[in-house]
Amino acid sequence: MLSRVMVLEEFNKPLVEKEVEIPQLSSGEVLVKISASGVCGSDVHMWKGEDPRTPLPIVLGHEGVGEIVEINGSKKTVDGIELKTGDTILWNRGITCGKCFYCKVARQPFLCEDRKVYGINISFNEHPHLNGCYSEYIVLRHNTDVFKIPKDIDPAIIVNASCSGATAAHGFDIIKPGNGDVVVIQGPGPVGIFSVAFAKACGVKEIVVIGGTQKRLDLCREFGATRILNRHETTREDRKQAIFELTRGRGADYVIEAAGYPQALREGLGLVRPGGTYLSMGFAQPMGSIEFDGYSDLVRKNIRIMGVWVSDTRHTFQAMNLVLSNPEAFEKMISHRYPLLKANEALRAMDNKEALKAVLIP
Amino acid sequence: MLSRVMVLEEFNKPLVEKEVEIPQLSSGEVLVKISASGVCGSDVHMWKGEDPRTPLPIVLGHEGVGEIVEINGSKKTVDGIELKTGDTILWNRGITCGKCFYCKVARQPFLCEDRKVYGINISFNEHPHLNGCYSEYIVLRHNTDVFKIPKDIDPAIIVNASCSGATAAHGFDIIKPGNGDVVVIQGPGPVGIFSVAFAKACGVKEIVVIGGTQKRLDLCREFGATRILNRHETTREDRKQAIFELTRGRGADYVIEAAGYPQALREGLGLVRPGGTYLSMGFAQPMGSIEFDGYSDLVRKNIRIMGVWVSDTRHTFQAMNLVLSNPEAFEKMISHRYPLLKANEALRAMDNKEALKAVLIP
Amino acid sequence: MLSRVMVLEEFNKPLVEKEVEIPQLSSGEVLVKISASGVCGSDVHMWKGEDPRTPLPIVLGHEGVGEIVEINGSKKTVDGIELKTGDTILWNRGITCGKCFYCKVARQPFLCEDRKVYGINISFNEHPHLNGCYSEYIVLRHNTDVFKIPKDIDPAIIVNASCSGATAAHGFDIIKPGNGDVVVIQGPGPVGIFSVAFAKACGVKEIVVIGGTQKRLDLCREFGATRILNRHETTREDRKQAIFELTRGRGADYVIEAAGYPQALREGLGLVRPGGTYLSMGFAQPMGSIEFDGYSDLVRKNIRIMGVWVSDTRHTFQAMNLVLSNPEAFEKMISHRYPLLKANEALRAMDNKEALKAVLIP
Amino acid sequence: MLSRVMVLEEFNKPLVEKEVEIPQLSSGEVLVKISASGVCGSDVHMWKGEDPRTPLPIVLGHEGVGEIVEINGSKKTVDGIELKTGDTILWNRGITCGKCFYCKVARQPFLCEDRKVYGINISFNEHPHLNGCYSEYIVLRHNTDVFKIPKDIDPAIIVNASCSGATAAHGFDIIKPGNGDVVVIQGPGPVGIFSVAFAKACGVKEIVVIGGTQKRLDLCREFGATRILNRHETTREDRKQAIFELTRGRGADYVIEAAGYPQALREGLGLVRPGGTYLSMGFAQPMGSIEFDGYSDLVRKNIRIMGVWVSDTRHTFQAMNLVLSNPEAFEKMISHRYPLLKANEALRAMDNKEALKAVLIP
Repeated sequence: MLSRVMVLEEFNKPLVEKEVEIPQLSSGEVLVKISASGVCGSDVHMWKGEDPRTPLPIVLGHEGVGEIVEINGSKKTVDGIELKTGDTILWNRGITCGKCFYCKVARQPFLCEDRKVYGINISFNEHPHLNGCYSEYIVLRHNTDVFKIPKDIDPAIIVNASCSGATAAHGFDIIKPGNGDVVVIQGPGPVGIFSVAFAKACGVKEIVVIGGTQKRLDLCREFGATRILNRHETTREDRKQAIFELTRGRGADYVIEAAGYPQALREGLGLVRPGGTYLSMGFAQPMGSIEFDGYSDLVRKNIRIMGVWVSDTRHTFQAMNLVLSNPEAFEKMISHRYPLLKANEALRAMDNKEALKAVLIP
Repeated sequence: MLSRVMVLEEFNKPLVEKEVEIPQLSSGEVLVKISASGVCGSDVHMWKGEDPRTPLPIVLGHEGVGEIVEINGSKKTVDGIELKTGDTILWNRGITCGKCFYCKVARQPFLCEDRKVYGINISFNEHPHLNGCYSEYIVLRHNTDVFKIPKDIDPAIIVNASCSGATAAHGFDIIKPGNGDVVVIQGPGPVGIFSVAFAKACGVKEIVVIGGTQKRLDLCREFGATRILNRHETTREDRKQAIFELTRGRGADYVIEAAGYPQALREGLGLVRPGGTYLSMGFAQPMGSIEFDGYSDLVRKNIRIMGVWVSDTRHTFQAMNLVLSNPEAFEKMISHRYPLLKANEALRAMDNKEALKAVLIP
Repeated sequence: MLSRVMVLEEFNKPLVEKEVEIPQLSSGEVLVKISASGVCGSDVHMWKGEDPRTPLPIVLGHEGVGEIVEINGSKKTVDGIELKTGDTILWNRGITCGKCFYCKVARQPFLCEDRKVYGINISFNEHPHLNGCYSEYIVLRHNTDVFKIPKDIDPAIIVNASCSGATAAHGFDIIKPGNGDVVVIQGPGPVGIFSVAFAKACGVKEIVVIGGTQKRLDLCREFGATRILNRHETTREDRKQAIFELTRGRGADYVIEAAGYPQALREGLGLVRPGGTYLSMGFAQPMGSIEFDGYSDLVRKNIRIMGVWVSDTRHTFQAMNLVLSNPEAFEKMISHRYPLLKANEALRAMDNKEALKAVLIP
Repeated sequence: MLSRVMVLEEFNKPLVEKEVEIPQLSSGEVLVKISASGVCGSDVHMWKGEDPRTPLPIVLGHEGVGEIVEINGSKKTVDGIELKTGDTILWNRGITCGKCFYCKVARQPFLCEDRKVYGINISFNEHPHLNGCYSEYIVLRHNTDVFKIPKDIDPAIIVNASCSGATAAHGFDIIKPGNGDVVVIQGPGPVGIFSVAFAKACGVKEIVVIGGTQKRLDLCREFGATRILNRHETTREDRKQAIFELTRGRGADYVIEAAGYPQALREGLGLVRPGGTYLSMGFAQPMGSIEFDGYSDLVRKNIRIMGVWVSDTRHTFQAMNLVLSNPEAFEKMISHRYPLLKANEALRAMDNKEALKAVLIP
């Protein structure tokens, strides 16, 4: 049996369509027919060669949902359900070693030094080759964490849960805002929108979103944002004033950076109240520095600044449950759908920000 | 009855000796005969007019231990002990309003917007005038939190507990390192030495201290530091290498800034392991900025950066208990003792760093 | 000026209507015209003499909303807003000393040993007499924590926030469930319904409510319960099976006791998953013991059992914000409204469980 | 090559000496020559058939230290050190699946439903047979977590770190007492002594130990207990009074049960202060119930009751570091040493409590 794949052979060049023989499964491996594959903003960076982790050639695609075609041996979900052919599944995109200091002592498996991620750092050359989701089929390794999902849900809306959703879940797993809190979110991209949804699910009082794309800001409102500040219609001073008025001059209890720009970081630190929390999740690659003052930005305000890097199975579980609790809303996040063979178009639509979220439907 | 006081009337000029009538106590007030008054590094800044909170004229001195001379009405310690004349006491130097968002909702009373501090922001002109510890007597207001201390302890060694000790307690109350952890402390001044003592009291595996004054570094070793890195004998690269060797290439679990210099902050952020914690307590006033990279300093490393500002009664309680658990060690922190009237000499000895800690004994 | 009050002079006898002169306010006191006063289940216990804290004579009523008639001096809300005549306010029913171990060291002011509560442990004989909410007017002491509320909200629906709502807020402030969690709530009374609302506001996956009154269970469903188990239609074994099926045999992540019966405690402990949390808030007075096995109930399951007693200003703030976020829903909790003079009827309606929540509207 | 083993073939009968062929190692397996094997109190229960997990026949012994004889392939320590022949190692006695809800979502791997433990639930019949530490050699499976320990430490004093020490570490990892706290420990056995050592390492103010064996209580004092209450010389009322005097009538901040008797649980709950914590770790098997009152034991006191079951690699890491920080003290815990072939004597010495801790030295 053959699988069609789209392979990145050379940075900045179009992905190339190929057909490969589906290999024999080893013990514990699962062959999955992809039903939806998310095109992530970081895929664009990898395509352009901006992410140092990227081996060539590679089948991109780290966000996938699919249907089980074959299992070598038996396999259970994280929740203990015995999997079988025909089940629809989501999986944690990262595979951790389960043996190192981060996995076993620090209980921070997302920092595992030997973390492998489908579609990100496993080459197409590496057996069993079907190691990414821009493909008709993927082979999941024996130590992949799998969740079963209902068959009646559009698979396209679940793919986000394993990447931007899981990252936002990771952040909220640490900060846990609550009733009465004012939360500011910088950046209405996928991580930002998930942050709005998580903040809403935490019952906070006000969710203010700062961003530059009105369409995305409008979507934030549908997810529960109570106030929108469009960067093109307000100055930095306007925004600060709006947030300080809302908080009786204190500043926000939580400010969440999901933008990835130094200017956002610089602006956001000034919006946190004394004793509050700044959560930064948006920097997927180096974007330049800011001026940071140990006295006025940190000590005098007694604030907590949290950096959050990727996610693990716990967070994918949380994000998946969030999406399943309100699939209608999350459907609106999927702005573009393409057949697998149009992956290059999908990448371009993500690159020029025409698409909020593109999904490949093989 | 009269009390001799040393008054700061003009910045950068010597304190002036005066005698003032001790006023009638209002209900709940306590008249205390000072037995030891700490001279803090921030007193030097106030003396020079570098701390914007300082009203003139003022009796400096926010760290005091003394004996009760009179109580108007009755007064209990925080621990519920009825106080009486002759008791030796320590008190929390800050008075919080008990009514605001920080006191009542956020449970961060150290951030109270109406916090008053003896010797820091209460003028000598304000009734009852005896509002600082560079004095024979002080009048404690009714809402001052008081602890009773044993009579057989040298009072000079307790004064630190209400300022640098309480600040360090505040930091450790949040970070709580434990067995097996590697802790780096930047700056062997009073907050740094208390940090060594708290880290030791947390049972951590390694305590590395970075500093420039060998005498202070030696004292850190007596408090439990397992490794000393003298800035004058090592390069920044040497120190990084030493800490990475100790941690198998990961970096320290906790890095604690008690130095107050931007260079320390810049160096320290590079010493934290992924998933670790950076605690900053040393910036008492603006000292300039650093370059800070949202990707490599924060998000990619998934670290937590905590700023800690001053302290409250909870932290004074913790620091006092730490000091009382090992008075012999803490006695070594008191490098200089002066009679009250030599307060100007004491300030100069703190200013030129000849003294690690000076105490006035009226 | 006179205020009509309903006074409990003798246990188990009807409250007696009286008129008292409104006294001169002392500094910091606030005179409030009550617009709604909640009748709490514990008022019934006090009325019957079952609560040992109750002094006689007393004006009951610890849940109040009202309008400011006069302020002696000035007074700010917890949020820093200067109050003025005509403002509609809610206040924290408890007054804490701000000086003791619980207030200052443990940061558990709800455990303050000198906690005074309007309508619960302040006698009618004590100046200024207007110390409870079953009255036209109440005098708030200077150290009462006050919140301003919008004028366009029906005051009856806010009163709960200062008692059952705040208790539930206290519990959720500690346990913080999240996405994907299964929560079981025992008892659909006011604390139980608030628990449903808080669980919903935490974004949990499943909220199962166990109770005996169908009308209340139906209301729980409106607040977000996903599954109802009526005690009169199921056996204990049925309920256990239903919850174990929902959780793949593990048990619930969180079980919340808001029932106040030993049988509920005994049943509930068996419903928690290993590593989960049992939160108990329903016991307002001794109701008898259960058999508790240190091995199978506690150690082998590695669970956490939390007891929660009353609340403080932080929790009232959280509950108030929860109610204000969805006033339409909370209006349905108010099953009965009575004029002040029918307070005895209201108590009877609460006693025989005809009313879920009765409110007096003077 | 042969290994001598002591096999439990029938409950309540002496272990039987055997010699078995050491099998070929599979990939990732490590052959270890045991240098010390702890005899645990639970071994006695297993020997008597009181622990339902015990398969027959079995080689007991879940606490081991040894020297690497052979590695099939390569193997790193948790800390990332490449292991080699001749290294001295400690290992986590439990092997967890790394795939289930507890391992991956709840981050409570000690609750893994498929947890395998050397010497506890792996039969002698199961390949590779050398599955317990009452043996000259053990074969560690590929997914065993290993720590390297210094060669100059007496191996006998480290064995505890992987069982009683790790259990206590687990408890303290959750409760984290601090400066100024009063901690009561019930039971001066191995878990109790480790609790004294951890409490001391947390810098607490007072450590009170309640127990019945004076020799063990004396050892607790050497580990830092500040007060000893011998059950044979005090009544329950005496002990309560002593603790309430020490805490100004409040009760202890933390009470830690390391005794395993219902009476201890019953007594201990009465010793916790309002808002405090009760930690129970001593029940390894059912020992009977107590009367437990939801109002007075739990809700009115607003306490937290934590049950702790076994431990994982994180805790073994913490306990190992505690032991290595003070080997002289921990040497005193090892009261008896026996050659492997006298394992039956060692079990009897543990059974009749003559030995505090017996170790087999093959």
